Amino acid sequence: MYAIAIHGGAGTLPRAEMTPERETAYRAGLAAALDAGYAVLDAGGTSLEAVTTAVRILEDDPMFNAGRGAVLTHEGIAELDASIMNGANLAAGAIAGVRHVKNPIELARAVMEHSAHVMLIGSGAEEFALERGLALVPNEYFRTETRKAQLQRVLTGDTRPANELSALGTVGAVALDRAGNLAAATSTGGMTAKRYGRVGDSPIIGAGTWADNASCAVSATGHGEYFIRAAVAHDICARVAYGGKSLAQAADAVVMEHLVKLGGEGGVIAIDPQGRIAMPFNSEGMFRGARTSDGEREISIYRDR
Amino acid sequence: MYAIAIHGGAGTLPRAEMTPERETAYRAGLAAALDAGYAVLDAGGTSLEAVTTAVRILEDDPMFNAGRGAVLTHEGIAELDASIMNGANLAAGAIAGVRHVKNPIELARAVMEHSAHVMLIGSGAEEFALERGLALVPNEYFRTETRKAQLQRVLTGDTRPANELSALGTVGAVALDRAGNLAAATSTGGMTAKRYGRVGDSPIIGAGTWADNASCAVSATGHGEYFIRAAVAHDICARVAYGGKSLAQAADAVVMEHLVKLGGEGGVIAIDPQGRIAMPFNSEGMFRGARTSDGEREISIYRDR
Repeated sequence: MYAIAIHGGAGTLPRAEMTPERETAYRAGLAAALDAGYAVLDAGGTSLEAVTTAVRILEDDPMFNAGRGAVLTHEGIAELDASIMNGANLAAGAIAGVRHVKNPIELARAVMEHSAHVMLIGSGAEEFALERGLALVPNEYFRTETRKAQLQRVLTGDTRPANELSALGTVGAVALDRAGNLAAATSTGGMTAKRYGRVGDSPIIGAGTWADNASCAVSATGHGEYFIRAAVAHDICARVAYGGKSLAQAADAVVMEHLVKLGGEGGVIAIDPQGRIAMPFNSEGMFRGARTSDGEREISIYRDR
Repeated sequence: MYAIAIHGGAGTLPRAEMTPERETAYRAGLAAALDAGYAVLDAGGTSLEAVTTAVRILEDDPMFNAGRGAVLTHEGIAELDASIMNGANLAAGAIAGVRHVKNPIELARAVMEHSAHVMLIGSGAEEFALERGLALVPNEYFRTETRKAQLQRVLTGDTRPANELSALGTVGAVALDRAGNLAAATSTGGMTAKRYGRVGDSPIIGAGTWADNASCAVSATGHGEYFIRAAVAHDICARVAYGGKSLAQAADAVVMEHLVKLGGEGGVIAIDPQGRIAMPFNSEGMFRGARTSDGEREISIYRDR
């Protein structure tokens, strides 16, 4: 049994604005990441490689809020966060506040595999990226016209961040490989018009990302402040590990009850060692996809499709 | 019932180097923080105010690795991290990589109380500090002769970071107030000779700090990379909340078993809603203190004293 699930954020367009053309494009973007990650597993690759592959593709796709197409800070800059975790040995890597690393998830993975550290931030993280030979790009590479227009709307009070597609935007993946190992990865540009070096849950091991072969792997997407305060990813796995809950019960309890009470909008993708997948969200929609070696394949945006 | 516990790091001096004079000085520093925090509770103050007070005093004391007397980065700079959490409503604040904020714990608390965010990093966090009117100081304020000498020893290979007092240095406090509310706070300079904007567990909500009235409050100190990978603070509380363990059982399982298996040296201070305190550590010692309204008062460094 092997399987992968991905998300492209819980900040979907309101249905009224989701034209058939846009929906087709989003579905195609999700399918490309999902099937590429699945192909890694199918060929006997690791869950770590599968989630890295899927997230890299979503980072490169300007429709999603990560890597190219990331939302912009108050100052109009793209500032990127990412994290990754290996359920086999609890190794983890995270980076926050980088501005020039083409694929933040690759830097998070390099931190995990080639540094003595788990989390690096800011220019120090970019120094490490350069030493590792990772691809750096001008900040302009990340900034699309769509995101510039979104920032303008937010700055001029034309809309609130929560009304922009971007507000709950993140990408992520979780996977189980043939060897029975779990992994999780998350990457984001954060919130439109964020200030003060704000960091959300995506690069926080335990909040946006968690993987432990003993319980489950989770990647979260939503209003990051609430997700940190709920330690969402670790809490779901703790309810499985200590509370005897199924993955679906644990994920529902955290996303549909605890987060709703706190006021935290968003969702998660989660997978357990048996390859069972849960993808609950309390927002209007969540870009998501799942594919298993049982032949199941799903790509969805709203609750009913 | 009300109570407070504090720590000054799990990186104690080897007994051979702990002169009676040094030990007296450390005990006096711990006593000052412990009794000031306790006085807040005794006067009917909140646990949040008590942990802020205790941590501020430890930050101001150059003997401990936080605020003044923080260890230095590879480049000889002090870079400070801190976090705080309110168990009553799961509000939280965290900052990482700041260089000029005199009391990092006050900035973490300002983030929690006066921003829409939970975590701010680097120069953005300092911008927010300036807007809030917090005291900023030259980086030189933090740098003591002792820390400069430590850095030199590490850089010249004269010793490894793990052999320096500073390696596992952090300060923290947890408290229960008369109203039954828990809080936790942690502050650090990180690891001697750290590079690349390295961030440890101290500013990570769920790793170095956690507080939830439903289970417990924890502040951790140790080799931060392992503490992040174990989500130490949240994991202890999750074992209490979902696993039916007592605070002592949960803290022991995480610190003396799980962390030991991972290879993570250090300890925690933890308190539950009944005012029970646990302070396990798997290192040679941990600077610590605890005081309760039952009249108990303890200040210890090693296992037996």
